[in-house]
Amino acid sequence: MNSGQLSEKMMGLVLANGEMKRVVDVRSDTVTKPTDAMRVAMAQAQVDDDVLCSDPTAATLQQQMAKIMGKEAALFVPSGTMGNLISVLVHCEVRGSEVIVGSNSHIHVYENGGISTIGHVYPHLVENETDGTMDIKKVEAAIRPSGGDDMYYATTRLICIENTHANGGRCITAEYTDKIGELAKHHGLKLHVDGARIFNASTALGVPVDRLVQAADSVSVCLSKGLGAPVGTVIVGSHEFIAKAKKLRKTLGGGMRQVGVLCAAGLIALNDMVGRLREDHKNCRILAESLNAIDGFHVRLDAVETNIVFVDLSVDSAFGAEELCEAMKEKGILFMPVGHMRFRLVTHHQISEDDVRYAIACFRDISVRLQTRRKIT
Amino acid sequence: MNSGQLSEKMMGLVLANGEMKRVVDVRSDTVTKPTDAMRVAMAQAQVDDDVLCSDPTAATLQQQMAKIMGKEAALFVPSGTMGNLISVLVHCEVRGSEVIVGSNSHIHVYENGGISTIGHVYPHLVENETDGTMDIKKVEAAIRPSGGDDMYYATTRLICIENTHANGGRCITAEYTDKIGELAKHHGLKLHVDGARIFNASTALGVPVDRLVQAADSVSVCLSKGLGAPVGTVIVGSHEFIAKAKKLRKTLGGGMRQVGVLCAAGLIALNDMVGRLREDHKNCRILAESLNAIDGFHVRLDAVETNIVFVDLSVDSAFGAEELCEAMKEKGILFMPVGHMRFRLVTHHQISEDDVRYAIACFRDISVRLQTRRKIT
Amino acid sequence: MNSGQLSEKMMGLVLANGEMKRVVDVRSDTVTKPTDAMRVAMAQAQVDDDVLCSDPTAATLQQQMAKIMGKEAALFVPSGTMGNLISVLVHCEVRGSEVIVGSNSHIHVYENGGISTIGHVYPHLVENETDGTMDIKKVEAAIRPSGGDDMYYATTRLICIENTHANGGRCITAEYTDKIGELAKHHGLKLHVDGARIFNASTALGVPVDRLVQAADSVSVCLSKGLGAPVGTVIVGSHEFIAKAKKLRKTLGGGMRQVGVLCAAGLIALNDMVGRLREDHKNCRILAESLNAIDGFHVRLDAVETNIVFVDLSVDSAFGAEELCEAMKEKGILFMPVGHMRFRLVTHHQISEDDVRYAIACFRDISVRLQTRRKIT
Amino acid sequence: MNSGQLSEKMMGLVLANGEMKRVVDVRSDTVTKPTDAMRVAMAQAQVDDDVLCSDPTAATLQQQMAKIMGKEAALFVPSGTMGNLISVLVHCEVRGSEVIVGSNSHIHVYENGGISTIGHVYPHLVENETDGTMDIKKVEAAIRPSGGDDMYYATTRLICIENTHANGGRCITAEYTDKIGELAKHHGLKLHVDGARIFNASTALGVPVDRLVQAADSVSVCLSKGLGAPVGTVIVGSHEFIAKAKKLRKTLGGGMRQVGVLCAAGLIALNDMVGRLREDHKNCRILAESLNAIDGFHVRLDAVETNIVFVDLSVDSAFGAEELCEAMKEKGILFMPVGHMRFRLVTHHQISEDDVRYAIACFRDISVRLQTRRKIT
Repeated sequence: MNSGQLSEKMMGLVLANGEMKRVVDVRSDTVTKPTDAMRVAMAQAQVDDDVLCSDPTAATLQQQMAKIMGKEAALFVPSGTMGNLISVLVHCEVRGSEVIVGSNSHIHVYENGGISTIGHVYPHLVENETDGTMDIKKVEAAIRPSGGDDMYYATTRLICIENTHANGGRCITAEYTDKIGELAKHHGLKLHVDGARIFNASTALGVPVDRLVQAADSVSVCLSKGLGAPVGTVIVGSHEFIAKAKKLRKTLGGGMRQVGVLCAAGLIALNDMVGRLREDHKNCRILAESLNAIDGFHVRLDAVETNIVFVDLSVDSAFGAEELCEAMKEKGILFMPVGHMRFRLVTHHQISEDDVRYAIACFRDISVRLQTRRKIT
Repeated sequence: MNSGQLSEKMMGLVLANGEMKRVVDVRSDTVTKPTDAMRVAMAQAQVDDDVLCSDPTAATLQQQMAKIMGKEAALFVPSGTMGNLISVLVHCEVRGSEVIVGSNSHIHVYENGGISTIGHVYPHLVENETDGTMDIKKVEAAIRPSGGDDMYYATTRLICIENTHANGGRCITAEYTDKIGELAKHHGLKLHVDGARIFNASTALGVPVDRLVQAADSVSVCLSKGLGAPVGTVIVGSHEFIAKAKKLRKTLGGGMRQVGVLCAAGLIALNDMVGRLREDHKNCRILAESLNAIDGFHVRLDAVETNIVFVDLSVDSAFGAEELCEAMKEKGILFMPVGHMRFRLVTHHQISEDDVRYAIACFRDISVRLQTRRKIT
Repeated sequence: MNSGQLSEKMMGLVLANGEMKRVVDVRSDTVTKPTDAMRVAMAQAQVDDDVLCSDPTAATLQQQMAKIMGKEAALFVPSGTMGNLISVLVHCEVRGSEVIVGSNSHIHVYENGGISTIGHVYPHLVENETDGTMDIKKVEAAIRPSGGDDMYYATTRLICIENTHANGGRCITAEYTDKIGELAKHHGLKLHVDGARIFNASTALGVPVDRLVQAADSVSVCLSKGLGAPVGTVIVGSHEFIAKAKKLRKTLGGGMRQVGVLCAAGLIALNDMVGRLREDHKNCRILAESLNAIDGFHVRLDAVETNIVFVDLSVDSAFGAEELCEAMKEKGILFMPVGHMRFRLVTHHQISEDDVRYAIACFRDISVRLQTRRKIT
Repeated sequence: MNSGQLSEKMMGLVLANGEMKRVVDVRSDTVTKPTDAMRVAMAQAQVDDDVLCSDPTAATLQQQMAKIMGKEAALFVPSGTMGNLISVLVHCEVRGSEVIVGSNSHIHVYENGGISTIGHVYPHLVENETDGTMDIKKVEAAIRPSGGDDMYYATTRLICIENTHANGGRCITAEYTDKIGELAKHHGLKLHVDGARIFNASTALGVPVDRLVQAADSVSVCLSKGLGAPVGTVIVGSHEFIAKAKKLRKTLGGGMRQVGVLCAAGLIALNDMVGRLREDHKNCRILAESLNAIDGFHVRLDAVETNIVFVDLSVDSAFGAEELCEAMKEKGILFMPVGHMRFRLVTHHQISEDDVRYAIACFRDISVRLQTRRKIT
């Protein structure tokens, strides 16, 4: 019995005759399962108690990641949410701090408001443009004038940007990041990059990842999205930042014992998986262009830069995104609606070009079927 | 090259000639490395995205643990600290809550004050007796009389006990736990058991673990201490408690993706390792009695109930605990001082009776040598 | 020596010959000094320890305010900031709460982010329209879909609106408030009205104040702005809300002993000062229209509804708001710049129509002088 | 109708024939009503908007208090609870802080746990001795060894002591305070003195108040206890401490507008009322000795140092503290039980020696009557 079987059974993907249904899971790049190389690495990992002293595999992963990102030090944490939470809280360690975040950013939208409800930091929203940036003038305007006598404002201590920006996988350039970094420095603020998919940005822009985050005081990098590791994010920054982050990780309960078993998979992810992200981008473009050619489907092709594509249904569509999603699920194509008239597809290392072609064919069939059924009715 | 080698090199345990020094690591039962069975299980684990949907191996582990503990539901979390933090915060979800904790409890002493600094809960200390209990009258006196008109007190919402109690591995009986549970119920409070080593208590008392925690509203159980899993704790409680715990785990950043790789090791821990805890207890007793027989070493033998032994040096000892610890390290015996005149040893599945005999012999030698050296000087 | 003299000396308002300069202080309606009637009332106030038992004058004020606002109960607090803070925190008493607030609201802009940095509540911003409302569709869209299984969102528990809206003294109608109240009720949320200047809104709209806040679960009402009391805000709501508010007031340190000395002035404010707010509105309109007639000054006259007027300088103005402010200060006219090209004037019971005429004349003179000086240079 | 009448009616102290019952209210020194001089001062106070700029009377009070206490600066706050809360939070402004507080201290017992539930600071309890001190060795042991690598402990940043200690009005000497101050300095910690009744300590010890708090980084001093002002506490410390305190006061909602009306009474309290505290102490001693002479009443006379006396009932008493309290209330003697067999009396400026003699006579009568009634039954 193969290792993915049980969960696939739970998703109704095993046929009545016991055969496996073909599945193309493009819900997210977080669904990737560990590769065989990762499984071997986990089984053979050298480990020690990372709370009591230091796990050797964790140490290796952290050193490599710090070097790749061009920062002094690194720390493995169980999730991207903890990576961002710790980063914001370390930069905003003094009571009464405020952080500037984008209106569509993962930190604002999808992290349970933890920076406030757990971390007591005030979020100051700045509107995200469609390309994932924030207008630099708006960022500057959002910095509270906390002179000595101010009595009304929380103290701005941090700006957060996201690269690629979750809302569409848009790449943030090194130049933009540098400008935000200059602004931050000018006002005595720190800059954190939520770099969950920073390697996608680096790949798409053709810019080394350390150059991309040169201006950042901290970056969180996900190993379990496009890079395919089962679990984990690494945050990087100065020695001082990482020392504080390590203690906060313990406070939050993110300190793990023989964590090398996870880091061993993370090392494979870092060393073997970065180079192949361009395939995901290529497959995503095929998806985008082919779906855009289907009647009633619209894709802003210039907004497809990495491995994420948003598809809009026509205003007069005979079916909605949820209905389409359900119908496609029967064909084994898994994805997620984003509102009633939009859906999102994400490519990753378990999606081949052939999978993409199969998915496109299914989309064509199903959309015609749904369209027709309505007309008949 | 064997998997533990690198970290042992880091601890200076590889001899000049490249051979491995014999190491008896009794610093804590947290130092245990995954067994071969665990490594195989991790490599073959069935997994899925436990944030987006549900990881099948995590689901299995959680179901088994809930059943064993006699509770409705369970949740895997990355550490015991997060298990306790989430439990306290879920029971104390309303602003202005107070929790009664023991003066020597892990939550009070070793968890960075996270329940306050992250969770905004006020800790109300009650003195721990040497047997790990709190005097029930003192617990009752600590419950704040929060009648309708009270204006002065935080609202007591939770009592926490610890079994075995970290400060010596003392077992808390089912009868005592029941009494605390009745008190809690009488005052409308919840009861949380920090059961990091609850299976050690169950083994030593000869009482089924579900009976031991019958009165508890929640329990956190560690897989990575005596049970030997590399990472993880499971918390158990009602469906409602676990639903809230799951969301809070996400907020804290403890939600992990293909977490089944860790849970697979946890299942081995739960199924294969509980039965052998009695060996650790037997080895610990041998250690206790033999060390107590060494001149200048004192052990309260009646306080040694499970796998932890505290050893006191004579008031007129020629050497202190740190010095002894350093000297023993050269022999490959690793343990931790607790203050200047006390040290702690913890047995676990990587410590055989032969290791124990070897350690005792080393203690004899070294204590004589340190004693003598001083006299000569 | 009259009671205001010292502070006026501090502001440089005493002439060299010892005579008082004429001062028209339109910085804010918070600058009002207690009236003679208030001073007498304070001196004769019946008081008792309001922490230990209940201050009789506080009780009377609270009863009156509750009745006027059409709510069950009321509580005196030291400031509007504490009134809002307590209200938000009581409605959001469960960890992980989110509140919907306007992008120009006092709570978001001017209260130090206290709801997060002290209260651990996540603010969810919705853009304020120029009339002080928030688009109801945007409010609805901001309500997080916190179904049972949601793992990503803080739980929306409260909507806050502000009446009059600080950003210009705009009145929010009963109809709008009702609609927001229905939306809140439909989603199981509470509605808080920051009614610091709710009596101004009631006066301008010609709608009884209890009707205006009929849909609200809580309202904070300021006694020390247009109503002229030296200190204090009263919050109103259900008995349960006020009971929780009272305890939280104690926790924050807002419980005061013989607070009747302040409440006595508050009673005068409530009984004698509401009826005359229409004079402030009339004076404000005179200011608005007359300033708008001055070359280089622009006022959106339709936006002037109560006692606050914003004046914009022409884009090609030869002087900025700060410079104008400084120059006018020499004439005894005190007001505050809002950015470089805008300033704000607020009328109140210490500003007569004659003061307004005097101020207008000064504005005319000074603007000509500043304009001319530049041209000469 | 005299100013106290209404509240006294509420307490049932007006006789059926409309005459006033004689009342001796020794519940606390917080019950004192403003003196005539204070009422006049409030009515004539020079005031201004203390949020927008600075209230002149507040400025004068703050300057005087800073000078008297020998510190750089001072800040008026609405209550002792806010004074302590702000002080602890300013010294512990970095997330993850711990404060050492006494087990019977006001901060620990009576302030709703606000330092944690609002301020996220972890309280580390040290047992209070009966004289109000904490054993210095225990204080030192409670300081967490937060070296660079520590992962387990919140960071100790502050020690709090209380003078006089609420639990009996015990005086803390300058020498003891100096020693605690040295300890704090040695470990890089701050020292806060909860000096709600510091002038009582100064009076009883015959030591200038600035000498008493010489080692403190901050002190909170109550104006509304023995000094008789209606409302307010002043905190003192360095310029930097007070600047941070002022901003935090605004965040908490403790910034008040024309606060000079309260500060004017505070100035009278500071200037006129300190000198007469010795009368309260004398009256308290008379009470203590006379009550101790009554059969069944026990007072530890050596513990009566200022204006507070605890009286214990004999173990075999025929009546409890609550019953005695109720019976005495009918005679107009008001005080509070502390548990079932103990009650507390507090003298203040509204209690004359004649009141004390009257109270003693009533205690004698009532105790005999209650004793007898039981015997007959």
